[in-house]
Amino acid sequence: MEGIIRVAVDAMGGDNAPAEVVKGAVEAVAVREDIQVLLLGRKAAVEEELVKYTYPSHRIEIIDAPEVIETAEPPVIAIRKKKQSSIVMGMNMVKQGEADALVSAGSSGAILVGGQVIVGRIKGVERPPLAPLIPTEKGVSLLIDCGANVDARASHLVQFAKMGSIYMEHVVGVKNPKVAIVNIGAEEEKGNALVKETFPLLKECKEINFVGSIEARDIPHGEADVIVCEAFVGNVILKLYEGVASAFMGIVKQGMMSSLRSKIGALLVKPALKKTLKAFDASQYGGAPLLGLKGLVVKTHGSSKAAEVTNSILQCVTFKEQQINEKIKNNIEISSKEE
Amino acid sequence: MEGIIRVAVDAMGGDNAPAEVVKGAVEAVAVREDIQVLLLGRKAAVEEELVKYTYPSHRIEIIDAPEVIETAEPPVIAIRKKKQSSIVMGMNMVKQGEADALVSAGSSGAILVGGQVIVGRIKGVERPPLAPLIPTEKGVSLLIDCGANVDARASHLVQFAKMGSIYMEHVVGVKNPKVAIVNIGAEEEKGNALVKETFPLLKECKEINFVGSIEARDIPHGEADVIVCEAFVGNVILKLYEGVASAFMGIVKQGMMSSLRSKIGALLVKPALKKTLKAFDASQYGGAPLLGLKGLVVKTHGSSKAAEVTNSILQCVTFKEQQINEKIKNNIEISSKEE
Repeated sequence: MEGIIRVAVDAMGGDNAPAEVVKGAVEAVAVREDIQVLLLGRKAAVEEELVKYTYPSHRIEIIDAPEVIETAEPPVIAIRKKKQSSIVMGMNMVKQGEADALVSAGSSGAILVGGQVIVGRIKGVERPPLAPLIPTEKGVSLLIDCGANVDARASHLVQFAKMGSIYMEHVVGVKNPKVAIVNIGAEEEKGNALVKETFPLLKECKEINFVGSIEARDIPHGEADVIVCEAFVGNVILKLYEGVASAFMGIVKQGMMSSLRSKIGALLVKPALKKTLKAFDASQYGGAPLLGLKGLVVKTHGSSKAAEVTNSILQCVTFKEQQINEKIKNNIEISSKEE
Repeated sequence: MEGIIRVAVDAMGGDNAPAEVVKGAVEAVAVREDIQVLLLGRKAAVEEELVKYTYPSHRIEIIDAPEVIETAEPPVIAIRKKKQSSIVMGMNMVKQGEADALVSAGSSGAILVGGQVIVGRIKGVERPPLAPLIPTEKGVSLLIDCGANVDARASHLVQFAKMGSIYMEHVVGVKNPKVAIVNIGAEEEKGNALVKETFPLLKECKEINFVGSIEARDIPHGEADVIVCEAFVGNVILKLYEGVASAFMGIVKQGMMSSLRSKIGALLVKPALKKTLKAFDASQYGGAPLLGLKGLVVKTHGSSKAAEVTNSILQCVTFKEQQINEKIKNNIEISSKEE
């Protein structure tokens, strides 16, 4: 199995599991020959979906995981008690080296807790950030951190900037990515206590292309590639992005349906609009990696369809090929020694 | 001048000053007979605009303010040095009771600093929050605080909730407004240290209709009327709102212009779309009040047109008529005594 990348996929996670997850796995092995997918989930349910497809049988394996962690369950207890769940089993496989990565659309809380507790952090990494890609007018930006660990310290944010920069350059393919910190003004003296403490530290960082503060209004215009922030703020940005876009879309639709004239216009506009709106959709890039772990864990949207699952699996391949964890390890270790 | 409400208006503030400000003032005095507007600014420039209109001359007065505070100036220094600026003079008039309110589209920093330093806080108010209205699918919500005072304490947020609730009920006219705190999950145990400390305090507040946490994605859907948050988070929400809406609008336009077919459709859709999008525009409600001061200061958008100026002036009338400051005073004083 030399050169084969093994990706564990949580077949029970998300709103469209297992159907869309299985479909996404089948599509992924069709795209690349060097991937093996391990589908974790209730065997009968996964099998029922898998038999619908033709695929090279040695490239997709079902691993029975009879337990399921529900979204509403308290993550710490779920991780501890449900040893036979797809998330816990998948994380254990990553830890043992039986899989290179885990992709899951399941409970964010369980994934964040499991990543730290089961897979574990790379030595020197203080906190593993969750880093989703968000759509912008120019492409995508990496928003780091949107995880569960709020009230971060300045040293955490500096590590987020470094890890995010490595990811954006080597997985997404943005040369010398522009790194900015979320702030309430462009000037260096602006900000809350955390930002004021972090700003000079980022300025000193030679490994990154720090461009200063970014105001929230400039994020959608793609003015920076790596957007550094504390997880509470990151979560607000991520969710408001979705909320405003969906409210706005609703209002546009309502306008289009308000008269006969506009309804005819809507029919003519629809195909072109659909095409451009698709570009404003980050799921084509895959899910959000939980960076800084001794293995790769990728969280996809709860509403993921097959395409996002496929892209997330392919993203794991790039992650492995580009030796992202080795790069993070070297970078963080060097920094620790310098201090 | 019994029963007349005197509103000082900064004729030099914002991108469209003095032309749009003067126009807005003329329109305001045409709407209501009990308003007098004091236009503060460089006399010649303001006069040049004012002569274009017909209006009852005793209802609009020009007060010469030869200095102008620029947006980029450090606010504390500007407030201290430019005593003859429209902002400082207007604030002094509010302080002395020569004006009931000041409306300005000028430097946010100068307005926030001046409000505290010149007009001063109501006794018991720890921090005066800036509270803009943001558009939602259902109408508008009050986002409190978006000011300059970041790193707030729990007691500040409780006061924001109370003041915001009074404003929303008596100025905007929402009965028993739903108050929520911005959080990263709906459960009570979620949040950063500040939210965890504030949540139980809000729950205990008998004067407000506290409905719990609100996730950022639900803000645009209008799930709460008063959105309580610390100023850094509030600023991110406010600016991201603008940023996502404008990026999204750009993408929709681009889609509509991408083919001949879609261009024809766009022509048919345009009038209806314009109408519904107008509803998603909070400027019809006026500007953002700086609450908790011994007088009223309203900040309007830097890009304000005449209509927003007019609405902001009318908003000052409602504020006075509804005795908002007396209500805030009573509410905060009672709470201080209870402690």
